[in-house]
Amino acid sequence: MTIEMHDLAGANPDVRFSPFCWRARMALAHKGLDVKTIPWRFSDKETIAFSGQGLVPVIRDGGKVVHDSWAIAEYLDEAYPEQPGLMDGPQGRALASFARHYAQSVINPVALKAVLLDIYNCLDEGDKKYFRDSREKRVGMTLEAFTATPDAAFAAMKTAVATLRAVVQGQPFIHGDQPAFGDYCVFGTFMWARNVSKVKLLAEDDPVHAWRERMLDLFDGLARKSPGVGA
Amino acid sequence: MTIEMHDLAGANPDVRFSPFCWRARMALAHKGLDVKTIPWRFSDKETIAFSGQGLVPVIRDGGKVVHDSWAIAEYLDEAYPEQPGLMDGPQGRALASFARHYAQSVINPVALKAVLLDIYNCLDEGDKKYFRDSREKRVGMTLEAFTATPDAAFAAMKTAVATLRAVVQGQPFIHGDQPAFGDYCVFGTFMWARNVSKVKLLAEDDPVHAWRERMLDLFDGLARKSPGVGA
Repeated sequence: MTIEMHDLAGANPDVRFSPFCWRARMALAHKGLDVKTIPWRFSDKETIAFSGQGLVPVIRDGGKVVHDSWAIAEYLDEAYPEQPGLMDGPQGRALASFARHYAQSVINPVALKAVLLDIYNCLDEGDKKYFRDSREKRVGMTLEAFTATPDAAFAAMKTAVATLRAVVQGQPFIHGDQPAFGDYCVFGTFMWARNVSKVKLLAEDDPVHAWRERMLDLFDGLARKSPGVGA
Repeated sequence: MTIEMHDLAGANPDVRFSPFCWRARMALAHKGLDVKTIPWRFSDKETIAFSGQGLVPVIRDGGKVVHDSWAIAEYLDEAYPEQPGLMDGPQGRALASFARHYAQSVINPVALKAVLLDIYNCLDEGDKKYFRDSREKRVGMTLEAFTATPDAAFAAMKTAVATLRAVVQGQPFIHGDQPAFGDYCVFGTFMWARNVSKVKLLAEDDPVHAWRERMLDLFDGLARKSPGVGA
Protein backbone atom coordinates (compact mmCIF):
# COMPACT_ATOMS: atom_id res chain seq x y z
CA MET A 1 0.00 0.00 0.00
CA THR A 2 1.27 3.48 -0.82
CA ILE A 3 2.05 5.72 2.14
CA GLU A 4 0.88 9.33 1.89
CA MET A 5 3.11 12.10 3.20
CA HIS A 6 2.23 15.77 3.53
CA ASP A 7 5.37 17.63 2.53
CA LEU A 8 6.09 21.37 2.81
CA ALA A 9 6.12 23.00 -0.66
CA GLY A 10 6.94 26.41 -2.09
CA ALA A 11 5.01 28.54 -4.59
CA ASN A 12 6.18 25.91 -7.06
CA PRO A 13 4.52 22.81 -5.57
CA ASP A 14 7.40 20.62 -6.76
CA VAL A 15 9.93 22.53 -4.64
CA ARG A 16 10.21 20.69 -1.32
CA PHE A 17 12.56 22.13 1.24
CA SER A 18 11.60 21.31 4.83
CA PRO A 19 14.60 19.70 6.55
CA PHE A 20 12.23 17.61 8.66
CA CYS A 21 10.26 16.46 5.62
CA TRP A 22 13.54 15.48 3.95
CA ARG A 23 14.42 13.36 6.98
CA ALA A 24 11.11 11.53 6.62
CA ARG A 25 11.34 11.28 2.82
CA MET A 26 14.79 9.70 2.99
CA ALA A 27 13.61 7.39 5.80
CA LEU A 28 10.75 6.14 3.64
CA ALA A 29 13.13 5.54 0.75
CA HIS A 30 15.58 3.75 3.08
CA LYS A 31 12.75 1.36 3.92
CA GLY A 32 11.98 0.88 0.22
CA LEU A 33 8.39 1.99 0.72
CA ASP A 34 6.14 3.52 -1.93
CA VAL A 35 5.18 7.04 -1.02
CA LYS A 36 2.89 9.63 -2.52
CA THR A 37 3.85 13.12 -1.33
CA ILE A 38 1.19 15.79 -1.05
CA PRO A 39 2.40 19.39 -1.33
CA TRP A 40 1.46 21.34 1.77
CA ARG A 41 1.72 25.01 2.77
CA PHE A 42 2.02 26.57 6.23
CA SER A 43 -1.52 27.94 5.84
CA ASP A 44 -3.07 24.51 5.11
CA LYS A 45 -3.70 23.68 8.73
CA GLU A 46 -7.04 22.00 8.01
CA THR A 47 -5.59 19.48 5.52
CA ILE A 48 -3.49 17.90 8.29
CA ALA A 49 -5.99 18.40 11.09
CA PHE A 50 -6.51 14.62 11.02
CA SER A 51 -3.04 14.32 12.59
CA GLY A 52 -4.12 16.29 15.65
CA GLN A 53 -1.49 19.01 15.17
CA GLY A 54 -0.31 21.56 12.64
CA LEU A 55 3.17 20.65 11.39
CA VAL A 56 4.62 18.46 8.64
CA PRO A 57 5.83 15.85 7.91
CA VAL A 58 2.72 13.78 8.50
CA ILE A 59 2.42 10.29 7.07
CA ARG A 60 -0.68 8.15 6.66
CA ASP A 61 0.03 4.44 6.30
CA GLY A 62 -3.31 2.74 5.86
CA GLY A 63 -5.14 3.58 9.07
CA LYS A 64 -2.05 4.76 10.90
CA VAL A 65 -1.16 8.47 11.11
CA VAL A 66 2.25 9.61 12.39
CA HIS A 67 3.70 13.11 12.58
CA ASP A 68 7.21 14.36 13.50
CA SER A 69 10.18 12.99 11.58
CA TRP A 70 11.74 11.20 14.57
CA ALA A 71 8.44 9.50 15.42
CA ILE A 72 8.05 8.56 11.75
CA ALA A 73 11.47 6.88 11.74
CA GLU A 74 10.61 4.99 14.93
CA TYR A 75 7.27 3.95 13.46
CA LEU A 76 8.84 2.71 10.22
CA ASP A 77 11.39 0.58 12.08
CA GLU A 78 8.60 -0.90 14.18
CA ALA A 79 6.14 -1.46 11.33
CA TYR A 80 8.71 -2.68 8.78
CA PRO A 81 11.31 -4.59 10.79
CA GLU A 82 12.30 -6.77 7.83
CA GLN A 83 13.58 -3.72 5.93
CA PRO A 84 16.98 -2.13 6.71
CA GLY A 85 16.91 -0.40 10.12
CA LEU A 86 16.85 3.38 10.36
CA MET A 87 18.07 3.08 13.94
CA ASP A 88 19.58 -0.35 14.30
CA GLY A 89 19.25 -1.35 17.93
CA PRO A 90 19.92 0.86 20.95
CA GLN A 91 23.33 1.98 19.60
CA GLY A 92 21.91 2.93 16.21
CA ARG A 93 19.20 4.87 17.97
CA ALA A 94 21.70 6.69 20.21
CA LEU A 95 23.80 7.57 17.17
CA ALA A 96 20.75 8.88 15.28
CA SER A 97 19.90 10.97 18.34
CA PHE A 98 23.41 12.43 18.51
CA ALA A 99 23.40 13.28 14.80
CA ARG A 100 19.91 14.76 15.01
CA HIS A 101 20.93 17.06 17.86
CA TYR A 102 24.12 17.94 16.02
CA ALA A 103 22.04 18.95 12.99
CA GLN A 104 19.69 20.95 15.17
CA SER A 105 22.18 22.72 17.40
CA VAL A 106 25.18 23.17 15.10
CA ILE A 107 24.32 22.90 11.40
CA ASN A 108 20.78 24.33 11.16
CA PRO A 109 21.54 27.68 12.82
CA VAL A 110 24.41 28.31 10.39
CA ALA A 111 22.35 27.32 7.35
CA LEU A 112 19.52 29.53 8.56
CA LYS A 113 21.82 32.56 8.51
CA ALA A 114 22.48 31.80 4.86
CA VAL A 115 19.03 30.95 3.54
CA LEU A 116 16.21 32.41 5.67
CA LEU A 117 15.39 35.13 3.15
CA ASP A 118 15.68 32.65 0.27
CA ILE A 119 13.09 30.44 1.96
CA TYR A 120 10.74 33.41 2.18
CA ASN A 121 11.27 34.19 -1.49
CA CYS A 122 10.30 30.72 -2.64
CA LEU A 123 7.11 30.53 -0.55
CA ASP A 124 3.57 30.65 -1.85
CA GLU A 125 2.04 34.14 -1.48
CA GLY A 126 -0.40 32.83 1.12
CA ASP A 127 2.47 31.73 3.40
CA LYS A 128 4.66 34.83 3.18
CA LYS A 129 3.13 37.07 5.81
CA TYR A 130 2.96 34.26 8.40
CA PHE A 131 6.54 33.25 7.67
CA ARG A 132 8.00 36.76 7.78
CA ASP A 133 6.16 37.68 10.97
CA SER A 134 6.96 34.46 12.86
CA ARG A 135 10.61 34.23 11.76
CA GLU A 136 11.40 37.92 12.29
CA LYS A 137 10.00 37.61 15.78
CA ARG A 138 12.13 34.50 16.37
CA VAL A 139 15.41 36.00 15.10
CA GLY A 140 14.74 39.51 16.42
CA MET A 141 15.38 41.36 13.16
CA THR A 142 14.23 41.53 9.52
CA LEU A 143 14.91 38.56 7.26
CA GLU A 144 17.06 40.89 5.16
CA ALA A 145 19.23 41.94 8.11
CA PHE A 146 19.53 38.37 9.39
CA THR A 147 20.89 37.08 6.08
CA ALA A 148 23.02 40.09 5.18
CA THR A 149 26.36 38.24 5.40
CA PRO A 150 26.25 35.02 3.32
CA ASP A 151 30.06 34.93 3.14
CA ALA A 152 30.15 34.76 6.92
CA ALA A 153 27.73 31.82 6.78
CA PHE A 154 30.06 29.98 4.40
CA ALA A 155 32.98 30.51 6.79
CA ALA A 156 30.85 29.53 9.80
CA MET A 157 29.72 26.34 8.05
CA LYS A 158 33.32 25.35 7.46
CA THR A 159 33.81 25.34 11.24
CA ALA A 160 30.37 23.92 12.05
CA VAL A 161 30.93 20.77 10.01
CA ALA A 162 34.30 19.99 11.66
CA THR A 163 32.90 17.00 13.56
CA LEU A 164 31.09 15.63 10.51
CA ARG A 165 34.20 16.20 8.39
CA ALA A 166 36.34 14.09 10.72
CA VAL A 167 33.68 11.36 10.78
CA VAL A 168 33.28 11.08 7.00
CA GLN A 169 37.04 11.14 6.46
CA GLY A 170 37.10 7.79 8.28
CA GLN A 171 33.97 6.14 6.88
CA PRO A 172 31.48 6.88 4.08
CA PHE A 173 28.46 7.70 6.24
CA ILE A 174 27.68 8.83 9.79
CA HIS A 175 26.28 5.37 10.50
CA GLY A 176 29.32 3.62 8.99
CA ASP A 177 29.39 1.77 5.69
CA GLN A 178 25.71 2.45 5.04
CA PRO A 179 23.62 5.56 5.75
CA ALA A 180 20.80 5.55 8.28
CA PHE A 181 18.61 8.01 10.11
CA GLY A 182 21.43 10.13 11.59
CA ASP A 183 22.71 10.77 8.07
CA TYR A 184 19.22 11.80 6.95
CA CYS A 185 18.87 14.19 9.91
CA VAL A 186 21.98 16.11 8.92
CA PHE A 187 21.33 15.80 5.19
CA GLY A 188 17.86 17.36 5.61
CA THR A 189 19.53 20.65 6.46
CA PHE A 190 21.57 20.61 3.28
CA MET A 191 18.51 19.79 1.16
CA TRP A 192 16.68 22.68 2.78
CA ALA A 193 19.47 25.03 1.68
CA ARG A 194 19.87 23.42 -1.76
CA ASN A 195 16.24 23.66 -2.75
CA VAL A 196 15.65 27.29 -1.80
CA SER A 197 19.00 28.96 -2.33
CA LYS A 198 21.99 29.35 -4.60
CA VAL A 199 24.23 30.08 -1.63
CA LYS A 200 27.37 27.96 -1.43
CA LEU A 201 27.72 26.30 1.96
CA LEU A 202 30.56 23.82 1.36
CA ALA A 203 33.81 24.00 -0.55
CA GLU A 204 34.04 21.37 -3.28
CA ASP A 205 37.17 19.84 -1.77
CA ASP A 206 35.53 19.45 1.66
CA PRO A 207 35.00 15.79 2.61
CA VAL A 208 31.53 16.88 3.80
CA HIS A 209 30.80 17.94 0.22
CA ALA A 210 31.71 14.42 -0.94
CA TRP A 211 29.42 12.94 1.75
CA ARG A 212 26.60 15.21 0.56
CA GLU A 213 27.19 14.00 -3.00
CA ARG A 214 26.90 10.40 -1.80
CA MET A 215 23.65 11.30 -0.06
CA LEU A 216 22.29 12.99 -3.20
CA ASP A 217 23.02 9.77 -5.12
CA LEU A 218 21.10 7.47 -2.76
CA PHE A 219 17.93 5.72 -3.86
CA ASP A 220 18.52 6.30 -7.53
CA GLY A 221 19.22 10.00 -6.99
CA LEU A 222 15.99 10.75 -5.14
CA ALA A 223 17.29 13.97 -3.57
CA ARG A 224 19.39 15.02 -6.56
CA LYS A 225 16.35 14.84 -8.82
CA SER A 226 14.26 17.08 -6.61
CA PRO A 227 13.87 20.52 -8.17
CA GLY A 228 15.52 23.36 -6.33
CA VAL A 229 17.14 26.72 -6.85
CA GLY A 230 20.58 25.45 -5.88
CA ALA A 231 20.34 22.17 -7.83
CA MET B 1 46.38 -10.83 35.00
CA THR B 2 46.83 -7.15 35.79
CA ILE B 3 47.14 -4.86 32.78
CA GLU B 4 49.82 -2.16 32.98
CA MET B 5 49.10 1.29 31.63
CA HIS B 6 51.55 4.16 31.25
CA ASP B 7 49.59 7.26 32.21
CA LEU B 8 50.64 10.91 31.90
CA ALA B 9 51.35 12.44 35.32
CA GLY B 10 52.18 15.86 36.71
CA ALA B 11 54.86 16.91 39.18
CA ASN B 12 52.64 15.12 41.69
CA PRO B 13 52.72 11.59 40.26
CA ASP B 14 49.15 10.98 41.44
CA VAL B 15 47.77 13.78 39.30
CA ARG B 16 46.68 12.22 36.00
CA PHE B 17 45.23 14.54 33.40
CA SER B 18 45.71 13.32 29.82
CA PRO B 19 42.29 13.22 28.12
CA PHE B 20 43.46 10.25 26.06
CA CYS B 21 44.71 8.37 29.11
CA TRP B 22 41.34 9.00 30.78
CA ARG B 23 39.60 7.47 27.76
CA ALA B 24 41.71 4.35 28.16
CA ARG B 25 41.41 4.28 31.97
CA MET B 26 37.61 4.45 31.79
CA ALA B 27 37.60 1.82 29.03
CA LEU B 28 39.60 -0.57 31.22
CA ALA B 29 37.19 0.01 34.12
CA HIS B 30 34.21 -0.51 31.78
CA LYS B 31 35.64 -3.92 30.99
CA GLY B 32 36.11 -4.65 34.69
CA LEU B 33 39.82 -5.28 34.23
CA ASP B 34 42.51 -4.89 36.85
CA VAL B 35 44.97 -2.23 35.92
CA LYS B 36 48.18 -0.91 37.37
CA THR B 37 48.90 2.59 36.12
CA ILE B 38 52.48 3.78 35.82
CA PRO B 39 53.03 7.53 36.05
CA TRP B 40 54.76 8.82 32.95
CA ARG B 41 56.19 12.18 31.92
CA PHE B 42 56.64 13.66 28.44
CA SER B 43 60.40 13.28 28.82
CA ASP B 44 60.22 9.54 29.62
CA LYS B 45 60.42 8.46 25.98
CA GLU B 46 62.63 5.45 26.75
CA THR B 47 60.22 3.90 29.26
CA ILE B 48 57.61 3.39 26.50
CA ALA B 49 60.07 2.68 23.71
CA PHE B 50 58.82 -0.93 23.85
CA SER B 51 55.58 0.35 22.24
CA GLY B 52 57.44 1.59 19.18
CA GLN B 53 56.30 5.19 19.58
CA GLY B 54 56.42 8.03 22.09
CA LEU B 55 52.90 8.84 23.33
CA VAL B 56 50.65 7.57 26.10
CA PRO B 57 48.37 5.80 26.83
CA VAL B 58 50.21 2.53 26.30
CA ILE B 59 48.90 -0.69 27.78
CA ARG B 60 50.68 -3.99 28.24
CA ASP B 61 48.37 -6.97 28.65
CA GLY B 62 50.58 -10.02 29.11
CA GLY B 63 52.60 -10.14 25.92
CA LYS B 64 50.36 -7.70 24.04
CA VAL B 65 51.26 -4.00 23.78
CA VAL B 66 48.74 -1.46 22.47
CA HIS B 67 49.02 2.33 22.23
CA ASP B 68 46.45 5.01 21.28
CA SER B 69 43.18 5.17 23.20
CA TRP B 70 40.99 4.23 20.21
CA ALA B 71 43.15 1.22 19.40
CA ILE B 72 43.08 0.25 23.09
CA ALA B 73 39.27 0.30 23.11
CA GLU B 74 39.17 -1.82 19.95
CA TYR B 75 41.69 -4.25 21.44
CA LEU B 76 39.73 -4.59 24.69
CA ASP B 77 36.48 -5.37 22.85
CA GLU B 78 38.30 -7.96 20.79
CA ALA B 79 40.25 -9.53 23.65
CA TYR B 80 37.41 -9.43 26.21
CA PRO B 81 34.22 -9.98 24.19
CA GLU B 82 32.36 -11.43 27.17
CA GLN B 83 32.61 -8.11 29.04
CA PRO B 84 30.29 -5.16 28.22
CA GLY B 85 31.12 -3.70 24.81
CA LEU B 86 32.90 -0.37 24.50
CA MET B 87 31.67 -0.12 20.92
CA ASP B 88 28.76 -2.50 20.61
CA GLY B 89 28.57 -3.60 16.99
CA PRO B 90 28.99 -1.36 13.94
CA GLN B 91 26.46 1.20 15.25
CA GLY B 92 28.16 1.47 18.64
CA ARG B 93 31.46 1.92 16.85
CA ALA B 94 30.05 4.65 14.58
CA LEU B 95 28.59 6.43 17.62
CA ALA B 96 31.89 6.23 19.50
CA SER B 97 33.59 7.66 16.41
CA PHE B 98 31.13 10.56 16.19
CA ALA B 99 31.52 11.36 19.91
CA ARG B 100 35.30 11.10 19.68
CA HIS B 101 35.44 13.56 16.80
CA TYR B 102 33.00 15.84 18.62
CA ALA B 103 35.32 15.84 21.65
CA GLN B 104 38.32 16.53 19.45
CA SER B 105 36.88 19.19 17.19
CA VAL B 106 34.43 20.99 19.47
CA ILE B 107 35.08 20.40 23.18
CA ASN B 108 38.87 20.06 23.42
CA PRO B 109 39.72 23.38 21.72
CA VAL B 110 37.46 25.28 24.11
CA ALA B 111 38.84 23.51 27.18
CA LEU B 112 42.37 24.17 25.95
CA LYS B 113 41.70 27.93 25.96
CA ALA B 114 40.80 27.59 29.61
CA VAL B 115 43.47 25.27 30.95
CA LEU B 116 46.63 25.28 28.82
CA LEU B 117 48.59 27.38 31.31
CA ASP B 118 47.23 25.35 34.22
CA ILE B 119 48.52 22.17 32.58
CA TYR B 120 51.96 23.75 32.33
CA ASN B 121 51.86 24.75 35.99
CA CYS B 122 51.15 21.22 37.18
CA LEU B 123 53.91 19.58 35.12
CA ASP B 124 57.11 18.11 36.43
CA GLU B 125 60.05 20.52 36.02
CA GLY B 126 61.62 18.21 33.44
CA ASP B 127 58.56 18.50 31.19
CA LYS B 128 58.03 22.24 31.35
CA LYS B 129 60.37 23.50 28.67
CA TYR B 130 59.27 20.89 26.14
CA PHE B 131 55.62 21.63 26.86
CA ARG B 132 55.90 25.40 26.68
CA ASP B 133 57.94 25.34 23.49
CA SER B 134 55.78 22.81 21.66
CA ARG B 135 52.42 24.27 22.74
CA GLU B 136 53.38 27.90 22.15
CA LYS B 137 54.50 26.94 18.68
CA ARG B 138 51.18 25.15 18.11
CA VAL B 139 48.93 27.99 19.33
CA GLY B 140 51.11 30.78 17.97
CA MET B 141 51.39 32.76 21.21
CA THR B 142 52.52 32.46 24.83
CA LEU B 143 50.58 30.15 27.14
CA GLU B 144 49.71 33.22 29.20
CA ALA B 145 48.25 35.11 26.23
CA PHE B 146 46.35 32.05 25.00
CA THR B 147 44.57 31.56 28.32
CA ALA B 148 44.04 35.23 29.18
CA THR B 149 40.23 35.08 28.97
CA PRO B 150 38.89 32.18 31.10
CA ASP B 151 35.44 33.82 31.27
CA ALA B 152 35.27 33.67 27.49
CA ALA B 153 36.10 29.95 27.68
CA PHE B 154 33.19 29.39 30.07
CA ALA B 155 30.82 31.16 27.65
CA ALA B 156 32.27 29.29 24.67
CA MET B 157 31.84 25.96 26.47
CA LYS B 158 28.17 26.70 27.06
CA THR B 159 27.74 26.89 23.27
CA ALA B 160 30.17 24.04 22.49
CA VAL B 161 28.23 21.51 24.57
CA ALA B 162 24.87 22.31 22.92
CA THR B 163 24.76 18.99 21.06
CA LEU B 164 25.76 16.99 24.13
CA ARG B 165 23.25 18.93 26.24
CA ALA B 166 20.37 18.00 23.94
CA VAL B 167 21.52 14.36 23.91
CA VAL B 168 21.75 13.97 27.68
CA GLN B 169 18.44 15.73 28.22
CA GLY B 170 16.84 12.76 26.47
CA GLN B 171 18.90 9.89 27.88
CA PRO B 172 21.45 9.48 30.68
CA PHE B 173 24.52 8.80 28.52
CA ILE B 174 25.72 9.40 24.96
CA HIS B 175 25.40 5.67 24.30
CA GLY B 176 21.89 5.52 25.82
CA ASP B 177 21.00 3.94 29.14
CA GLN B 178 24.59 2.90 29.79
CA PRO B 179 27.84 4.71 29.05
CA ALA B 180 30.35 3.39 26.54
CA PHE B 181 33.43 4.57 24.69
CA GLY B 182 31.86 7.70 23.17
CA ASP B 183 31.02 8.90 26.67
CA TYR B 184 34.60 8.25 27.80
CA CYS B 185 36.00 10.17 24.82
CA VAL B 186 34.09 13.33 25.77
CA PHE B 187 34.54 12.81 29.50
CA GLY B 188 38.32 12.62 29.06
CA THR B 189 38.34 16.29 28.17
CA PHE B 190 36.50 17.23 31.34
CA MET B 191 38.87 15.14 33.49
CA TRP B 192 41.81 16.87 31.84
CA ALA B 193 40.37 20.24 32.90
CA ARG B 194 39.30 19.03 36.35
CA ASN B 195 42.65 17.61 37.37
CA VAL B 196 44.82 20.56 36.36
CA SER B 197 42.60 23.59 36.85
CA LYS B 198 40.11 25.34 39.10
CA VAL B 199 38.44 26.96 36.11
CA LYS B 200 34.68 26.46 35.94
CA LEU B 201 33.61 25.11 32.56
CA LEU B 202 29.96 24.19 33.17
CA ALA B 203 27.15 25.85 35.08
CA GLU B 204 25.77 23.65 37.84
CA ASP B 205 22.27 23.67 36.32
CA ASP B 206 23.54 22.55 32.92
CA PRO B 207 22.38 19.01 32.01
CA VAL B 208 25.94 18.40 30.82
CA HIS B 209 27.09 19.07 34.40
CA ALA B 210 24.67 16.37 35.60
CA TRP B 211 26.05 13.97 32.94
CA ARG B 212 29.60 14.73 34.12
CA GLU B 213 28.53 13.97 37.68
CA ARG B 214 27.14 10.60 36.54
CA MET B 215 30.44 9.91 34.80
CA LEU B 216 32.42 10.85 37.93
CA ASP B 217 30.32 8.32 39.88
CA LEU B 218 30.98 5.38 37.55
CA PHE B 219 33.04 2.40 38.69
CA ASP B 220 32.76 3.24 42.36
CA GLY B 221 33.82 6.84 41.77
CA LEU B 222 37.03 6.02 39.92
CA ALA B 223 37.34 9.46 38.29
CA ARG B 224 35.95 11.38 41.26
CA LYS B 225 38.58 9.89 43.56
CA SER B 226 41.44 10.91 41.31
CA PRO B 227 43.36 13.82 42.82
CA GLY B 228 43.17 17.08 40.95
CA VAL B 229 43.25 20.80 41.42
CA GLY B 230 39.58 21.22 40.46
CA ALA B 231 38.35 18.21 42.45
